[in-house]
Amino acid sequence: MFKLVIFGKKMYDPASLTHLCVALLQKCGLSRKDATTTANVLIAAELRDIPSHGLLRLADYIRMLRNGRINARAVPRVVHQSPSTLTLDGDNGLGPVVANLAMEHAIDKAREAGSGWVAVRHSNHFGIAGYYAMKALPHQMIGLCMCNANPLVAPTFSARGMLGTNPLAVAVPAGQEPPMVADFATAAIARGKVDLLHKQGMPIGKGFVQTADGNPSTDPGILTRGGAILPLGSTRKYGSHKGYCMAAVIDVFSALLSGANFGPFVPPSVAWLPLKDNLPGKGTGHFFGAMRIDAFLPARDFLSGMDHWIKTLRGARPARGKEKVLIPGDPEREAEARNAGTGIRLKEKVKEQLQALCDELGVTDPL
Amino acid sequence: MFKLVIFGKKMYDPASLTHLCVALLQKCGLSRKDATTTANVLIAAELRDIPSHGLLRLADYIRMLRNGRINARAVPRVVHQSPSTLTLDGDNGLGPVVANLAMEHAIDKAREAGSGWVAVRHSNHFGIAGYYAMKALPHQMIGLCMCNANPLVAPTFSARGMLGTNPLAVAVPAGQEPPMVADFATAAIARGKVDLLHKQGMPIGKGFVQTADGNPSTDPGILTRGGAILPLGSTRKYGSHKGYCMAAVIDVFSALLSGANFGPFVPPSVAWLPLKDNLPGKGTGHFFGAMRIDAFLPARDFLSGMDHWIKTLRGARPARGKEKVLIPGDPEREAEARNAGTGIRLKEKVKEQLQALCDELGVTDPL
Repeated sequence: MFKLVIFGKKMYDPASLTHLCVALLQKCGLSRKDATTTANVLIAAELRDIPSHGLLRLADYIRMLRNGRINARAVPRVVHQSPSTLTLDGDNGLGPVVANLAMEHAIDKAREAGSGWVAVRHSNHFGIAGYYAMKALPHQMIGLCMCNANPLVAPTFSARGMLGTNPLAVAVPAGQEPPMVADFATAAIARGKVDLLHKQGMPIGKGFVQTADGNPSTDPGILTRGGAILPLGSTRKYGSHKGYCMAAVIDVFSALLSGANFGPFVPPSVAWLPLKDNLPGKGTGHFFGAMRIDAFLPARDFLSGMDHWIKTLRGARPARGKEKVLIPGDPEREAEARNAGTGIRLKEKVKEQLQALCDELGVTDPL
Repeated sequence: MFKLVIFGKKMYDPASLTHLCVALLQKCGLSRKDATTTANVLIAAELRDIPSHGLLRLADYIRMLRNGRINARAVPRVVHQSPSTLTLDGDNGLGPVVANLAMEHAIDKAREAGSGWVAVRHSNHFGIAGYYAMKALPHQMIGLCMCNANPLVAPTFSARGMLGTNPLAVAVPAGQEPPMVADFATAAIARGKVDLLHKQGMPIGKGFVQTADGNPSTDPGILTRGGAILPLGSTRKYGSHKGYCMAAVIDVFSALLSGANFGPFVPPSVAWLPLKDNLPGKGTGHFFGAMRIDAFLPARDFLSGMDHWIKTLRGARPARGKEKVLIPGDPEREAEARNAGTGIRLKEKVKEQLQALCDELGVTDPL
């Protein structure tokens, strides 16, 4: 078996997990650089306590690399550009590889033009959006990232899921304070949470999912029978049309500006669902942005202003029974610091998947 | 009395209302051009069935122009720029005047650099965000607009209102289909709706407002006793942290990138609330964006793609009991077409306000 450094009971060394991930991906034909990029994104998700976008995804990535549904030797290509914008064709590469390159293009554009905006087509599932937005931070830039996804979410008044959980991430640098990193999906609840309740045989509260006819439902199994997740805002009364608007804007930026597939045509991000025929675009779409702080005002003014903003919000009186007001990104940053020290806890299912991949690909000791 | 052309019972000619508005604003020292710009924004809100941002605002605008809290002869000034970005100091002018100019700068920048992004400080309440975003449409550009506002909304876990209802508008051109125009606040409910229930002595549903201690409340009068509106998403369980993230990002873009006041320091947009002292920034902040379609891909491909997107979403099977799935902007566009024909219905209170303003400023017949 592959030698993982075990910190404690079921806690694994992030560096060992990264090496394992790189070794597995290289066996699928990825270059060392692309494998490392992908591993870094997946391990970042684990460290930031977002395991739904971490190593759990590796088996599907590898399945699709091995059956040719994802191109292991993709060479993304710039197909269009202006001083502050660029369109990238991902050549059907692995999402993290394409997304990482796209965000670097956005940063390069911003360096020259003040801001940089990159639309991406022909890509695939890219993991956590926040990872790419945060790439802007060391450059004293604000980073943005969004992408569309499989149609699980029903627009307001729709019986069917037509849009994805379409996440948005925005990373903003500060001075003395840690950066603000907002990273959230535009649906009322995550698919993973619905599935977990389903597995546990627990009902789901009202206002999260609907039946195939668009009626309210409290059955988390409804997604397997044509049901859909509601947009952020839950019902029309509580503003679901606003969550629908956000998901729509993210779909348009990610797919229409790039030439990727939109809404109901977005390809599945898991290997067991078949690809559809006659798609209107190419692959999955992303959209990235970078804005140089000093393209708007002196950086020191902005950074001290952000410190003031963060201290003011963090210092707000908490609601009765709550400990404190959080700044976007606080929970993930705290998890990252903690997990880097204690190691990453892997679920039994993920460990079994990793072992099976090692056996299948003949990975024993890449260190 | 001022002669308004009356179409039917209480329905007023939009052109007459515009002339009235221009006449009143000119009496306060505005140039004809700036008065017309402001009138157009307010009348657009009336036509689009958003009367909370229409002529109802004129009395406060005029009160603040007359007592010097808003600068009638403002000369906005570009204080910083890069090829794709610009920072504008609004010179404490009327919001619609400053915002209109800012969006023109964004469009100019986009023409040259592919995209244009304008941060604005020292401005005031600007009416409906969608108006400015839509200015990009005739140029085959996507338009964006956001602004911060008085702190009525409590971040997740906060006892106090710390952020505004911070709206976001995005306008996207299409080919044969009408454009998609998303224009929404990032709070669970509009302040105006809470006030209306309060006036009617009706309770408000759960999950819209909270008490001054951050406890759940169904009393719409709670806002007058230190209560706050909840973010889009309502409670933490339903994703209020996502609405809080959005409001936070909009506050940072509008205030921190421009040097305006953020969160709890945003000046009141009504004349009867006093200005605070020792503010960290200048006035209210806005943020505008324009992206040229053909900076990403050939415009005809995008426009036909948007037509396909709109037809697909509009053609989705409606939920049981619902008539159809709407495209963002459909209700406002339909209202505009209808009201342009039938005239604008004014509430008794607004008519009385207009009459009082005419009497006060000596406006009798500007036509």
